[in-house]
Amino acid sequence: MPKPTPSDAPADDLEQGSILTPRFDRDGLIAAVATDAATGDVLMLAWMNADALRLSVDTGIAHFWSRSRAKIWKKGEESGNLLRIEEMRIDCDQDAIWMKVRVEGEGVACHTGARSCFYRIVPVGVPGSTRLTRGS
Amino acid sequence: MPKPTPSDAPADDLEQGSILTPRFDRDGLIAAVATDAATGDVLMLAWMNADALRLSVDTGIAHFWSRSRAKIWKKGEESGNLLRIEEMRIDCDQDAIWMKVRVEGEGVACHTGARSCFYRIVPVGVPGSTRLTRGS
Repeated sequence: MPKPTPSDAPADDLEQGSILTPRFDRDGLIAAVATDAATGDVLMLAWMNADALRLSVDTGIAHFWSRSRAKIWKKGEESGNLLRIEEMRIDCDQDAIWMKVRVEGEGVACHTGARSCFYRIVPVGVPGSTRLTRGS
Repeated sequence: MPKPTPSDAPADDLEQGSILTPRFDRDGLIAAVATDAATGDVLMLAWMNADALRLSVDTGIAHFWSRSRAKIWKKGEESGNLLRIEEMRIDCDQDAIWMKVRVEGEGVACHTGARSCFYRIVPVGVPGSTRLTRGS
């Protein structure tokens, strides 16, 4: 697994190559989004450092870097709501990860008890509005 | 639209409240993921500052902050591949945005010409592997 530093690979290699060359940010992190493999709903967006990414790849269970606790975070380790990775992808410039996951345990991805962390809708096309509505 | 500073709202308000209180990072940015409203595929992950978020909310067309060009970026302004927002959501701690979008023009979200920026698969469960495969 490459070191947690921005890649200096040429853009062509980065975008079209077949070698994993994640571009971590200055904190050594990469954004990782998890969607429900069955529904396509976005469940959560969190951060991985190089170790969390390696653990996720090696084990097939999503691991993140907890910025608040400054430690590796095996999502669902206590609740049982592990995120089993059905497929992992990386984007064109290798600075974002997408995982299609199946939530184990109670099927709940959010610490609030919601299935997805994205349970509130921001109304669009209503200039100036800051009112959120509850989604399903 | 709140200023681009981390919110100091109590956690309960932040997580359960109905007021949009985006928590921008120290660079004044929030991660925004766009999925295809029809298929659920993740198309791209980019960044918004407060102005880009306001423009997205007000117009229903996704705007981002281009970190490389340091300016507002109306995605698809030149190519015609605008991202029309069908629904926008914000996550529990209000530090990530999810948009379900319909790609206009040629239906291509990635600057490489791919429909989605996430066109490469990271094999999972193959410890140590750094080999990417091309996805659909």
